[in-house]
Parts: sequence; structure tokens; C-alpha cells
Amino acid sequence: MRVPQASLIAIGDELVSARRPEINGPAIVPWLEALGCEIRARLLVPDRVEAIEAAVAAALAGGAELIVLSGGLGPTHDDVARQGIAAAVRRPLVLDEAVQSSIESRFRERGLEVPPEVARLALRPEGSELIPNPVGTAPGFVLRHAGATLIALPGVPREFESMFERKLLPELRRSLVGALARRSETLHVVGLTEAEVDLRVANAVETGPRLSVSFVSQRSEVEVLVTARAETEAEAARSLERANARLEEALGDLVYGRGDDTLVGVVGRLLAARGWSLATAESLSGGLLAKRITDQPGSSRFFRGGVAAYHDDLKRSLLDVPADVLEHCGAVSGETARAMAEGARRRMNAPVAVSTTGIAGPTGGSIDRPVGLVYLAVAWPEGLRVLRFLFPGNRNEIRSAASAAALDETRRVLSGLPPVGITVEERCGDTG
Amino acid sequence: MRVPQASLIAIGDELVSARRPEINGPAIVPWLEALGCEIRARLLVPDRVEAIEAAVAAALAGGAELIVLSGGLGPTHDDVARQGIAAAVRRPLVLDEAVQSSIESRFRERGLEVPPEVARLALRPEGSELIPNPVGTAPGFVLRHAGATLIALPGVPREFESMFERKLLPELRRSLVGALARRSETLHVVGLTEAEVDLRVANAVETGPRLSVSFVSQRSEVEVLVTARAETEAEAARSLERANARLEEALGDLVYGRGDDTLVGVVGRLLAARGWSLATAESLSGGLLAKRITDQPGSSRFFRGGVAAYHDDLKRSLLDVPADVLEHCGAVSGETARAMAEGARRRMNAPVAVSTTGIAGPTGGSIDRPVGLVYLAVAWPEGLRVLRFLFPGNRNEIRSAASAAALDETRRVLSGLPPVGITVEERCGDTG
Repeated sequence: MRVPQASLIAIGDELVSARRPEINGPAIVPWLEALGCEIRARLLVPDRVEAIEAAVAAALAGGAELIVLSGGLGPTHDDVARQGIAAAVRRPLVLDEAVQSSIESRFRERGLEVPPEVARLALRPEGSELIPNPVGTAPGFVLRHAGATLIALPGVPREFESMFERKLLPELRRSLVGALARRSETLHVVGLTEAEVDLRVANAVETGPRLSVSFVSQRSEVEVLVTARAETEAEAARSLERANARLEEALGDLVYGRGDDTLVGVVGRLLAARGWSLATAESLSGGLLAKRITDQPGSSRFFRGGVAAYHDDLKRSLLDVPADVLEHCGAVSGETARAMAEGARRRMNAPVAVSTTGIAGPTGGSIDRPVGLVYLAVAWPEGLRVLRFLFPGNRNEIRSAASAAALDETRRVLSGLPPVGITVEERCGDTG
Repeated sequence: MRVPQASLIAIGDELVSARRPEINGPAIVPWLEALGCEIRARLLVPDRVEAIEAAVAAALAGGAELIVLSGGLGPTHDDVARQGIAAAVRRPLVLDEAVQSSIESRFRERGLEVPPEVARLALRPEGSELIPNPVGTAPGFVLRHAGATLIALPGVPREFESMFERKLLPELRRSLVGALARRSETLHVVGLTEAEVDLRVANAVETGPRLSVSFVSQRSEVEVLVTARAETEAEAARSLERANARLEEALGDLVYGRGDDTLVGVVGRLLAARGWSLATAESLSGGLLAKRITDQPGSSRFFRGGVAAYHDDLKRSLLDVPADVLEHCGAVSGETARAMAEGARRRMNAPVAVSTTGIAGPTGGSIDRPVGLVYLAVAWPEGLRVLRFLFPGNRNEIRSAASAAALDETRRVLSGLPPVGITVEERCGDTG
């Protein structure tokens, strides 16, 4: 079996200095690994023609069969990927008039003057093939040179990912994976770290050339990409199903979905099935939970609204949290979380409400109430759950984990599953 | 004039897959830049001899004068940096008996048996010089080859940083003398696209080896990184100041800050100067604006809270938007934006409030009210501004642009600047 070598090159001064993290390479590593590629190197190079030329030349000389570049394809003067790549493969840049006139007409349709820089967007190395950009202006291209496939895509993550996944992945699947049939599936896990998922996966299945499992962590969730290979499609499908069954057994109800499922989408479907809607009441997550819900197109069908009651007097005035609860139990308490969820149900006229309160840091923690302590409550027509968590990490990570937990505990209530967080039973008066 | 070129190579499978972030390279980039080096590339390579050999060979061939490697120097079987480097410079590995006996005696002193793997730690390419490790077991080494200085250090960040800063930095300062002095500054711009910023920058300053300008776009803002190089520190500082003055003239009051400034931080400072606090009332941004504010540590000092009134009846019940405004003008109108901001001020008891309403898409647009149409209002003790925008892009981009505009228009009000958005003067009855 052949192991194709891939090199990933990300272009941008701000990536070299790490002022911005490079996320395009990491986003496609699992895909390339699932296709059986070995990543030979990831390179971060500045916006300079010679640096890009040298990186491409080195990748070619090093025997990479697949070279994926991101960035440097925009219309500004520091976008010089075209020049660098053309120099490395010793081909001139040629103007694609169809691309030029299509970009120009887009400007004219909106009644805008055509800036002279847009002509650059229509330049490509001779003999390369256009990759249209469905979500932005700068197109990409693919080029075959000395046995290697060279792919250049814009650096804007949304454009990069859309062009890679929609257009290139299907072609790479055909061209890279020899005779073996291949099936893959993504499982979505919430409530575990990547290391915990990794451990459970390692105990559940044996990976190798015919079964690979890789992970992507984001927004306090872990995506598990499972890929099975076999001589026939049917065999690959069976092998995948066997692996998924073992993984779902090992990961249990922390798997909330497969494929294109999102946590917000799953919660939305569960709400719709009962004809219910949702409201949020946030303190430490300060709008992040509502933002995650409204990121999802169509969320207005099940989301009524949310209150970010950052100051305590707004917990009283907008969410009816009783003054004596705030005084005796504190804003970071199970009682306050409970009162926020109940108040949100009533004030926003929503059958289901979920609340968050806690200490996101960096300051405000104490020995009794450390940074990362979070209470959340889910209130619904038939019950109430008040839960406690202690999340590790920095301010962003704690806020992200709290929002993910709020969504997941709502899913668990609506699915009749027990909670993941620790149930808070005591009244604050007992301990405080 | 000499600009020394540096390449940084980080070794580790988990860095290539981005399961662990690479932090050693970013930690030393500012040091190297301060010494006048230009970073030619950062490479992330797996724990494989050929991959390391190829990376070092490419860096040498590309003319790097300084190559800093991190990782792959431990005692386990996947620590193969020594082999890879030795292969690239075609030198044998030789055993340093002094290092071996010093490591062995450390084990014996603690009454431990000496594991056979530790012998590997005493291997170095012939002709290299030892770099002792003051905080760990694995030493590093430095090697001069074909005009380049090659430095290999362990990947554990504490060891890497300690060895780099204590031992190498003083030597590099001496050896790189003659390099140009370098000063840089970041300008933060809001309200323009990267292409628009680029055009204004190109008209304002001439870039070249002594003045470089690069851009980073994120969250609907553009960061402009300006770097000046000259023979002396003082000259570089003067040159930077001249460039910044021209750029600030060209970009005007769309520059909201420099260096570590953030838009939320600037708004917070302006509020604090007047003893005011802020509340938000969001429709299309659905919590994103409140989230951006509360991302900032310390925002509780000036942020009271926010309402994400996604459904219209919550605009009435939580923000007092009159039913006849919603009926006659619609939820997406200047009148509704105005009533939301005024209601937010009153209901959240905040001197300043900002509201957003609009059409984020992907559905819900029409010819009169296209996707991207956004109204926002800023209400403060001395006045009110109601503004209209038409933002390009998809749902995420429109929501992001609306949130940035809401923050920026708040900044503009507090700074006594005119608005960027189109002022909405007509009553909705006149047009609707």
C-alpha cells in the first residue's frame, strides 16, 4: 500500500509571528490522514515571493506528492502566493479573462467601480486549473508539476474550508486512495476532553491502515473522524459500522450526533418534536450561549431570546432572582442559577430555559469558589435540574465549556438522559 | 545592509497534527526580530529522521543563517532530531563521554539504575558544541555548518526558553551585530475592508526593505503591522513614527488604537472616563455583541448586561418597544432600533445603550430589505443616533460586522466623532 506524502504551506507574516494561529492546516490534517496521507511538514512562511518560492521548491524536492498552500491569494500588494508558486515551478502567470470579467461584472452589478487590483485575482500559473470560490472573491488553482499536485487556496478559513471540502476532497479521494474502498463518518462528542476521548477510543478499537481515527477539538467539543478501508464498498461500510458501534458503546450518550449534526441543531430538533421553545439566562457566559444558538440559521424557530444579566441588579430586574437569594447564596450559586432559569421561563414565556453563572476569571476566584466554578440550571415544564461544574482552563475556555455544558444538559433533559454535571441538592443556607 | 534570515523547525507528530500548539517558535520570534532577523519560515515536522533531515537541508539550501530546532532530543525511540540533523550536515554522531558520565552519576546519586537509553542523550553531531540544560536532562547543541548557525534545543517549553534566553540570546546578540535595528507597531482599524486599508496604506507610504506593512483581518477589523528598520534604534524609531503619522492621517479616525488596544477596551476606557456604563439590546446579532464585550476580562466594570430579544414579543416585554412601532415599521427598522436602545437604557439602568436589528440571512431578505440590511442605534444621556448599514457576506460575516459597527459607533459617540453609518432621519411612515 502506497503512503502519499503531503506538505502544507500557510502564507502570512502574522502566522510566522504567531500573532494569528494557523488553523487551515490543522483543519485538513485529519482529512488527509484519513485519506492515508502522511504529513511530511507544515510550513508557515511570510508574505514574500522568495520565501514562498523556497518553500514550494523544498516541498517538491522533498518528494511531496500533494502540496496544499493557503493564503496570499487576495488582491492586495502583500498577496504574492501566485508569484512565489509560479517562480518555484518556473511557469509564467497568465490572465484568465473569464475570471476577470466575472469579477468585474460582480462589481458593476452592485454599481461599484472596478478597482484596478482585481485583475491580480485573475492571474494563475500557466497550465493550472481554476478552483472557483463559492463564498468569496479570490479563486484558487490546482497545478500538476513533476509528479506532484499543488493546490493553492485563499487563507480566509471559511473560503479555504469550503473550497477544500466541497471541491478538492472528492477529487483527492479518487486520486490518492488506490484500490481500497473507503468509508468515513464523524461522531460528535461533548463533555470529554480530547485526551479522554482518545483513551476510550484506544480501548475500544484497534487502528491501523484499514481503520483510522482522528480528532478535532473545537468549542469544547470533540469530533471523532472514523475511516474504514477495505477491498469493497460494502466491506468498508460494514467495517465502519462495526467500529462506530464499538465507539458509541465506549463513548455512550456523550456522543450527541453524527455527520453534519451540531449540538444546537440537535437541541432544536428535540425542542421542535415537543413543540417547545428555549430561552437563555446568562451571567458568566455573557451572551456566548445565545450567540452559539443564533449562529445556527433557522434558530428563530426554537429560540425566543436571552438575557445576559452581567450585573446582579439585572438578575433581579430582568429575571426576578429574589434579592435574598443573591444576598444569602451569592450570584455564583445553585440557588441563583435555579432562580435565573425559572425567571427566564416566565419572563420570556418559554417552556424551556437554561441559565449559567460562575467565575470565568482571571480574577474573582477564591479557595471556596475557584475560577472555573460554574452552576447551571435547566427548567422545563416537568422539572428542574441544578448542576455544578469545575472547568479547567482560561477565561475563554471556561466560558466556552459552560456554554457547551448548558446546551448539552438541555439536550440530556429533552432526551431523558441523566445529567453529566454534579446535581446540586443542598440549599445554600446549609453550606454558606 | 544585512538582514539575517532565520528558520525555526519544531519537531513532533502532535505539532504537525496541531493536537498540541507549537509555542517555542512564537516565543522566540520577537527576540529574533528584535535582533534584526527576518523569519524565513517556521516548519512543523513529524518525529521522522527523513522529515527532519529534509527540513534542515531545505533551510540550509534556502540561505538561512540561523536555524533553531526544538524537540526530538529526549531519550525515547521517537526522539530522532540528532539523527536527522547529523544526516542533513553529513556528519557522524559522536558520544560525549563527559556528558554520559555526568548523566549516569546523577542517576547513581539518587540510587537509581542507569537506563540504557540515556547514552543517546550524550550523542551529538561531530564538531558541535554542548549547550547544557539547567532545568532538565537532555542537553542541546550548536553547530556551525556552511555559513549557518544551527541550534538544537529540547522541546519542553521551560527547558527550551531557559536555554535560549540564558545561553543563546547573549551570543546571538554578539554574532548578529551589524544587523539593522528594528521597531514595529500595530494600528487597529475598524470600518474598512482589508483591501480598502491596503489602498490607503499604499497611497500613504512607500514600503521596501526598510519599511514593511502587513495586514490581519479578524472580527470585522483590520490590524496594520508597521515595521521600520534602520542602522540605529533611534533612527528606526523615528522612521516608524513618521510612517505611523502618515498612516494615521490616511486612515483617519477609523484607527481606534495601537498595540494591545482592543475595540471593547477602548469603549470601556471612554465610558470609565465619564463614569458611564453600557447595556446592549440585540436582535440579529443575538448575543454576539454581549459576548464580544464580556470576552474582555474586567468588562464587568463598565458592562451592565444585554438582552437578545430574538422574538418580537420580547422586544416589547423586555425592551418596551411599542407594539405599533413593530407593526408599522417592522422589527428591521430605524424606529425599532431606536426604541430598543432607549428601552435598554431604561430597563437596564445604563447611561449608554446600543442596539442592533437587521437581516442576517440566509433567508428572510427581500428586494426592499435585503440580507445584510442592519439598523443600529446608540442612546446616551445627551443624544441619540440611529444608523443604517448594508453589510456584504454570509450570516456570520453580517453578524460580526454588525457587532463591530455597534461597538465602533459607541466609540464614535463617546469620542465626539461623526458616525460612519448612514444617519436615518425619516420616520418609517414616510417610506413604508
